[in-house]
Amino acid sequence: MIEIKKSPTSKIDKTNFDNLVFGQVFTDHMMECDYKNGEWQKPVIKPYGPLSLDPSARVFHYGQAVFEGMKAYKDKDDKIWLFRPEENFNRINRSSERLAIPEFPKEYFFNALVELLKLEKDWIKKGFGNSLYLRPFVIATEPGVSASAAKEYKFMIICSPAQAYYSGEVRVKFSEKYSRAADGGVGYAKAAGNYGAQFYPTNLVKEEGFQQIIWTDANSHEYLEEAGTMNIFFRIGDKLITAPTNDRILDGVTRKSVIALAKENNIDIEIRRVSVQEVIEAAENNELMEIFGSGTATVINPVAGFGHKDKKFELPKLENSYASFFKDKLMKIQYNEAEDKFGWRYEVK
Amino acid sequence: MIEIKKSPTSKIDKTNFDNLVFGQVFTDHMMECDYKNGEWQKPVIKPYGPLSLDPSARVFHYGQAVFEGMKAYKDKDDKIWLFRPEENFNRINRSSERLAIPEFPKEYFFNALVELLKLEKDWIKKGFGNSLYLRPFVIATEPGVSASAAKEYKFMIICSPAQAYYSGEVRVKFSEKYSRAADGGVGYAKAAGNYGAQFYPTNLVKEEGFQQIIWTDANSHEYLEEAGTMNIFFRIGDKLITAPTNDRILDGVTRKSVIALAKENNIDIEIRRVSVQEVIEAAENNELMEIFGSGTATVINPVAGFGHKDKKFELPKLENSYASFFKDKLMKIQYNEAEDKFGWRYEVK
Repeated sequence: MIEIKKSPTSKIDKTNFDNLVFGQVFTDHMMECDYKNGEWQKPVIKPYGPLSLDPSARVFHYGQAVFEGMKAYKDKDDKIWLFRPEENFNRINRSSERLAIPEFPKEYFFNALVELLKLEKDWIKKGFGNSLYLRPFVIATEPGVSASAAKEYKFMIICSPAQAYYSGEVRVKFSEKYSRAADGGVGYAKAAGNYGAQFYPTNLVKEEGFQQIIWTDANSHEYLEEAGTMNIFFRIGDKLITAPTNDRILDGVTRKSVIALAKENNIDIEIRRVSVQEVIEAAENNELMEIFGSGTATVINPVAGFGHKDKKFELPKLENSYASFFKDKLMKIQYNEAEDKFGWRYEVK
Repeated sequence: MIEIKKSPTSKIDKTNFDNLVFGQVFTDHMMECDYKNGEWQKPVIKPYGPLSLDPSARVFHYGQAVFEGMKAYKDKDDKIWLFRPEENFNRINRSSERLAIPEFPKEYFFNALVELLKLEKDWIKKGFGNSLYLRPFVIATEPGVSASAAKEYKFMIICSPAQAYYSGEVRVKFSEKYSRAADGGVGYAKAAGNYGAQFYPTNLVKEEGFQQIIWTDANSHEYLEEAGTMNIFFRIGDKLITAPTNDRILDGVTRKSVIALAKENNIDIEIRRVSVQEVIEAAENNELMEIFGSGTATVINPVAGFGHKDKKFELPKLENSYASFFKDKLMKIQYNEAEDKFGWRYEVK
């Protein structure tokens, strides 16, 4: 179904797999599928290379663009696995709908993933933490600077080899002025514009010694929502709490997997609004045990401390944290080293 | 200061200036200026043509992109004029700051505009309503899919000949569910992502027979803010009302020019929050005389009717509307046919 144009050369021998910076190196091939004349054309896998676009292409002017993040894993027997890819497929189409981008066909998505991964299998290294990060994305390519939905798009998948993601200790600041998303806006979508809008406020908190922001609701800044590239969990005593998804918060695949694992393992989990006040009170009473983020790139990212207004709090360093429990559980499923009770693994063959 | 590479050919003879669709035809040249190694490089004017970008360029994934809209006008003596270009220059840098994009130097901006317009002067046709629409924009070009501000950008200006913008009678729907911007968000910036996010809700109201949305505040949907590509004015009796700018509402150049002209002409103008309720009550009491939008592309766009929830209202057709008064005043200044008391015109020479 898919057309494959193989690259005559490979960059793999020039790639240092022991020293990968996240999202910087790309494999030899990419998938490209154009939408025009009212339908998605035949997908093509071809050598990775630059896109040629008119300077008036809608994506440059009106941010009509969405994406996904996924990973492929190689197990000890060289089998290749994806983790809940149907979730990513469904979500990119939910994102597309909100951005007025036409839905992408399911068979194209899975066929492209499988063929691309078979071609790039040597780029997926074995070993806990190694993976091939996959970036499906859609951009509006139609030329013309009138502010309306484009009639031409490109759906692409590019692949980047990744090692375990460790960015040092992460301290987060609770947002009290800036916001990520409005009620009735596009916060639930993986819309390109949601990310660029976070860079400036994040740079401001970096100057204060934090690495990321935990976004609060735009109306009151009293409720903790998500971290922009991660959903956020709070552990107070032995209870785990995370905000419910809504039209401001991304419905994270790792988030919902953590919730399922918590339930399976009889960890008390509450999905409800989390107030800034209760988290600060818990920290002051030494009941706040952990904060961690969840996301495809990071899997589970423990938070070492947080700030709110002028106050800074450090979190305890636990021997048996929920963060490490879930990270281990998730990765064992992802790498085919544990039973897959939920049917989350998808073998690429 | 600027390098000029002239196009060996011109498309001008193949362009039908009597039948221009807004934003579809571009002139022979464009301005391109790259940011790398921590500074803006030498600007270049060169033949209009496609951009070659890595598929991982930040603009495709994280919407780090801002733009401006301006027009150049030709008067009866073939002099070329811009309208308040300093406002556009200041605003693109305010937008850039919010999107973590480096500020563009003022001398580059004005030098590029002047040289580009001198080169493209034949594309600017005389006559009320004819203009050359200018689209300065900045995109993050650095390759790599890590979610942080890019270190490489492109500042560009492309030019599109335009006729008087008339899109038929415009009816608008007041938003009651979807939102354009959050408090603490990027609504005040001309960020690319603000526009793509409006297409889907706008398509929904088009199915109900409206052409545009008037966005309301995301918290309560009780206050009328802006129309996405236009600021909005309401005339109740002889009083004109428009919302104050804030971090959700674009600080429109045409908006502030209308306010100045209203004050100069002793038209009673209030800059304050406008509630949905007062507009509906005024419509029901036959006191709502006009609604009109203001923006660079449209100048002044009268609204023929509006909808709120299940109700629809038609506006009276006035002989001497404020809309036509301001449009005439503005255009006479723009085309050098009236005294320029405010010093808004900028001669390109």
